[in-house]
Amino acid sequence: FLDLYGKKVVVAWPDEYVLNITDPSIEISVKPKKPYQLVSNEWKKDPTKVKVKDVEIGDNKVIVAAGPCAVEDEEQVITVAKAVKRAGASILRGGAYKPRTSPYSFQGLGEKGLQILKRASEETGLPVVSEIMDTRDTEIFKKYVDMMQIGARNAQNFDLLKEVGKAGLPVLLKRGMANTVEEWLLTAEYILLEGNGNVVLCERGIRTFEKATRFTIDIGGMVAAKLQTHLPICADPSHPAGKRELVHSLALAAVAAGADMLLIEVHPHPEKALSDSEQQLTPESFEVLMNRIKALANAIGRTA
Amino acid sequence: FLDLYGKKVVVAWPDEYVLNITDPSIEISVKPKKPYQLVSNEWKKDPTKVKVKDVEIGDNKVIVAAGPCAVEDEEQVITVAKAVKRAGASILRGGAYKPRTSPYSFQGLGEKGLQILKRASEETGLPVVSEIMDTRDTEIFKKYVDMMQIGARNAQNFDLLKEVGKAGLPVLLKRGMANTVEEWLLTAEYILLEGNGNVVLCERGIRTFEKATRFTIDIGGMVAAKLQTHLPICADPSHPAGKRELVHSLALAAVAAGADMLLIEVHPHPEKALSDSEQQLTPESFEVLMNRIKALANAIGRTA
Amino acid sequence: FLDLYGKKVVVAWPDEYVLNITDPSIEISVKPKKPYQLVSNEWKKDPTKVKVKDVEIGDNKVIVAAGPCAVEDEEQVITVAKAVKRAGASILRGGAYKPRTSPYSFQGLGEKGLQILKRASEETGLPVVSEIMDTRDTEIFKKYVDMMQIGARNAQNFDLLKEVGKAGLPVLLKRGMANTVEEWLLTAEYILLEGNGNVVLCERGIRTFEKATRFTIDIGGMVAAKLQTHLPICADPSHPAGKRELVHSLALAAVAAGADMLLIEVHPHPEKALSDSEQQLTPESFEVLMNRIKALANAIGRTA
Amino acid sequence: FLDLYGKKVVVAWPDEYVLNITDPSIEISVKPKKPYQLVSNEWKKDPTKVKVKDVEIGDNKVIVAAGPCAVEDEEQVITVAKAVKRAGASILRGGAYKPRTSPYSFQGLGEKGLQILKRASEETGLPVVSEIMDTRDTEIFKKYVDMMQIGARNAQNFDLLKEVGKAGLPVLLKRGMANTVEEWLLTAEYILLEGNGNVVLCERGIRTFEKATRFTIDIGGMVAAKLQTHLPICADPSHPAGKRELVHSLALAAVAAGADMLLIEVHPHPEKALSDSEQQLTPESFEVLMNRIKALANAIGRTA
Repeated sequence: FLDLYGKKVVVAWPDEYVLNITDPSIEISVKPKKPYQLVSNEWKKDPTKVKVKDVEIGDNKVIVAAGPCAVEDEEQVITVAKAVKRAGASILRGGAYKPRTSPYSFQGLGEKGLQILKRASEETGLPVVSEIMDTRDTEIFKKYVDMMQIGARNAQNFDLLKEVGKAGLPVLLKRGMANTVEEWLLTAEYILLEGNGNVVLCERGIRTFEKATRFTIDIGGMVAAKLQTHLPICADPSHPAGKRELVHSLALAAVAAGADMLLIEVHPHPEKALSDSEQQLTPESFEVLMNRIKALANAIGRTA
Repeated sequence: FLDLYGKKVVVAWPDEYVLNITDPSIEISVKPKKPYQLVSNEWKKDPTKVKVKDVEIGDNKVIVAAGPCAVEDEEQVITVAKAVKRAGASILRGGAYKPRTSPYSFQGLGEKGLQILKRASEETGLPVVSEIMDTRDTEIFKKYVDMMQIGARNAQNFDLLKEVGKAGLPVLLKRGMANTVEEWLLTAEYILLEGNGNVVLCERGIRTFEKATRFTIDIGGMVAAKLQTHLPICADPSHPAGKRELVHSLALAAVAAGADMLLIEVHPHPEKALSDSEQQLTPESFEVLMNRIKALANAIGRTA
Repeated sequence: FLDLYGKKVVVAWPDEYVLNITDPSIEISVKPKKPYQLVSNEWKKDPTKVKVKDVEIGDNKVIVAAGPCAVEDEEQVITVAKAVKRAGASILRGGAYKPRTSPYSFQGLGEKGLQILKRASEETGLPVVSEIMDTRDTEIFKKYVDMMQIGARNAQNFDLLKEVGKAGLPVLLKRGMANTVEEWLLTAEYILLEGNGNVVLCERGIRTFEKATRFTIDIGGMVAAKLQTHLPICADPSHPAGKRELVHSLALAAVAAGADMLLIEVHPHPEKALSDSEQQLTPESFEVLMNRIKALANAIGRTA
Repeated sequence: FLDLYGKKVVVAWPDEYVLNITDPSIEISVKPKKPYQLVSNEWKKDPTKVKVKDVEIGDNKVIVAAGPCAVEDEEQVITVAKAVKRAGASILRGGAYKPRTSPYSFQGLGEKGLQILKRASEETGLPVVSEIMDTRDTEIFKKYVDMMQIGARNAQNFDLLKEVGKAGLPVLLKRGMANTVEEWLLTAEYILLEGNGNVVLCERGIRTFEKATRFTIDIGGMVAAKLQTHLPICADPSHPAGKRELVHSLALAAVAAGADMLLIEVHPHPEKALSDSEQQLTPESFEVLMNRIKALANAIGRTA
């Protein structure tokens, strides 16, 4: 029995003995012809709003989460947290456990990084989202963060999806860089099947032949997903851009296409950053971007 | 000697005898370390405005070209031409020579199709853009159209690029579906090297693994191109969408990211269209879209 | 009425008036549910052998075409032609009209290049294959070459496909770098529909995210094509390799997977080549490769 | 201090205090300009042979691992194990923990599956390789299997790579479906940095636009990797094929290109398989394939 969106749900195959369930308070969700069910907006027609503390993702306001790629030290994080809050961000992002392509790259501060994020959250009131990489870490994350992020490289780490589903915190679920929209929706289905319906889908760029950008932001795939699911959609313009100069345009394009949330990397001194130094915005540039996002949101009947 | 943007230009290798040219009215453009030169905004810093009759592409106004995928008959074209003009389009698009994947699909009306476009142009005052596929057809096109389009499948048909360069009419140059941004810019360089600087670059979606959309509109690649060239940029949201429901969002995303022009398929009865019936908008839907584009353009300091 | 493989064929839609044709010598080929028909091995079950002068492609012997990427001068071509013949090649390849990504790269010698190929052919007895790029050039090619090649960048230049179909010479049809197997087969269908059945399909690598090789040789796609068509299949290991060191392994893999023909770039002094200098083999390396191909062909019941 | 290939190794940055190490038995491996070091054949010039019980991978003999996609029951596994052994396979493969795209697909028998594999191993003498998905499972795997497999979807699950590195068993490391050759080598570097040098790299197909096959087997990428590393290379022809009819050709191509090992799915009744039913070979077809592999291996100076 799943307890999902205030309902009791049984996901069943047509040939199972669910027909004997006579309790009218239980909804029987027969496994569909489509490969996914619980994430589908045919099953749940009203858009889901995901609450991260008192921030609501999926409502009229476009929510912006901002902060450094990696937590480096307390001063860095608190400086950025205050700056992005002032500019209009609603959530603080920061990586403590870092999935790095090379074992010789900075691997993150681990639990110490989460503690720094927690302190920055207390100081600013911003809830915190951070990436979890290991099934063994859910308890640690529950102590420090308000939303768990699944990164692109673990998007099909199915055991991690299940553990994060059980942990119950809201989830920011990135699309794997080679996952189709259907596969992406199915990774969310894994989480919902554990009874955790607070999932935000995050487009962060796919792998293509093009090398002028780090990844190819798939605005079309993001829109296609939105047409099929009740879950809110986030876009990360920083990783596909790879270069600072592109971030504003990609962020604005995502909002224009209907994104409910943005995830943006901001660093007090990008050129000194221990990771992603090419693509992080300065606080000043972020403030300019926020103003552009607000103007655009207004023009399409939303706020930011 | 190229006559380009009002200057006399010689493109030369450093080791050539261009040093003997002493005429101060001639600009010597030494072949650069970058693979392209004439399209680069390092060489020509001011953005180029391409004039198609009295429509200016690359100025503050976002120009919209709209019309059917394929010219089917005169009534169809004139009906659509009037409707898209009323809604705010500035250019009429329509295919007379159609590059179809299958030899069994409708191949277009050929010259008769161009004549119909010409008549619709005369009736509405809208200039016409249409795709040319064969090096032997430039004279025919010069009789009927105001702008020649190079399609994605002929993007690296270098003999066609040269002929279109010589023909002198403004060119709408689509990006090949597997071309990098650098390769795309080099296809424009072929045209400029013939002395024709009136080129608009058009992003129309690249081939990726994703099948939820027909092609993957590469908003990032479009922005990356814009950062490197003085030529105006167009986006075609219809072909990457593949489905009507996605067209509005992709069009808005492209404008938000900085597109100077949009190319949109509109058909009076899309469900009866002889090609691309899934992705063409009705005139009513196009009018709604134009209003959304205008509101968005205003929010980012442009008009439409 | 097509005259194809010794039969008279009418390709028709089921609803057309072909039912009135009572001449028993005419085969009526009703347009199929599959997107292609004439290239399908459901329609023509026996494998097609394509004759280029007295060389038969599609028979038990694996045919190797070798020669320089670009024709540079007569000595270069004749030196290579003799060397590759001695090593066991059956066809001479060489580019006279070159589809170059950059307009600043060597564009080929044009008709003069074809004349050089013709002389090398006369000297060695090897038939010649060379790439045609422009619909206006079929008559010139018919004077000098024995097989016309359609390159990857013109794979969906449909007017060129039709002209080459009409010209009647055997065709080496490369797969476009972003074409699916189905689209590739349809480009051949265009040629067969002009009554020219002498088409060899050539896999030359597709565009993917991988940059360790120039293109990704799609051995799987080549095999998938072979399972669906009666036409012979060629593989070009030189272009996907991009680097000399990879060419042997890719050539052997293609033969092991069932290729009927190989197309290999050989240059007397690769390091001085005007194009593709990284991937051309020396005559010595080519001879070693031919010996490896012969041993492998024997092991799988073929010759080379 | 790593203990790797019989040496004591320190991986260091040039600016670290490794210069004070004067013990001549310790090799100081300064972090290189290339992104990887320990996997490079510049650092270790002799090819590594990975021992799985008494089977040696990377020697002259092409090693074949075969067995069902998923362990379903004891009879199934033992039947297949005996059949593949008889035909010439040296290792038994089988999935107990299954990374399935959909949560509604068969997820594998878990530890019970490993027990069945262990029994089949005891009965036939074949060592066993099976996929591990969760960092918490290394102790269980050490009880039952002889080689741990990292699947494509966990190829950049860096915590899992580290745990498997620590566990010490030989590793079959699949390439992520969107990983470049360089990224693939770096995932192996993660394992070697834990002191575990027994890694076999496995190409299993990458994600591309082509849908005629399930994935695109990247023979070129496999060869490019082999040119850069001392580690043995395996190819999995079953997953990229997606269809039984293609498996033979892809297996032969991989051997011809230099693969040291093959991983092939075989099921007693493929049509009834709980997963991958389209691509598993029957025991009879596998026996035919083994004979073809042996003939081919002989022709290129190897055995199988």
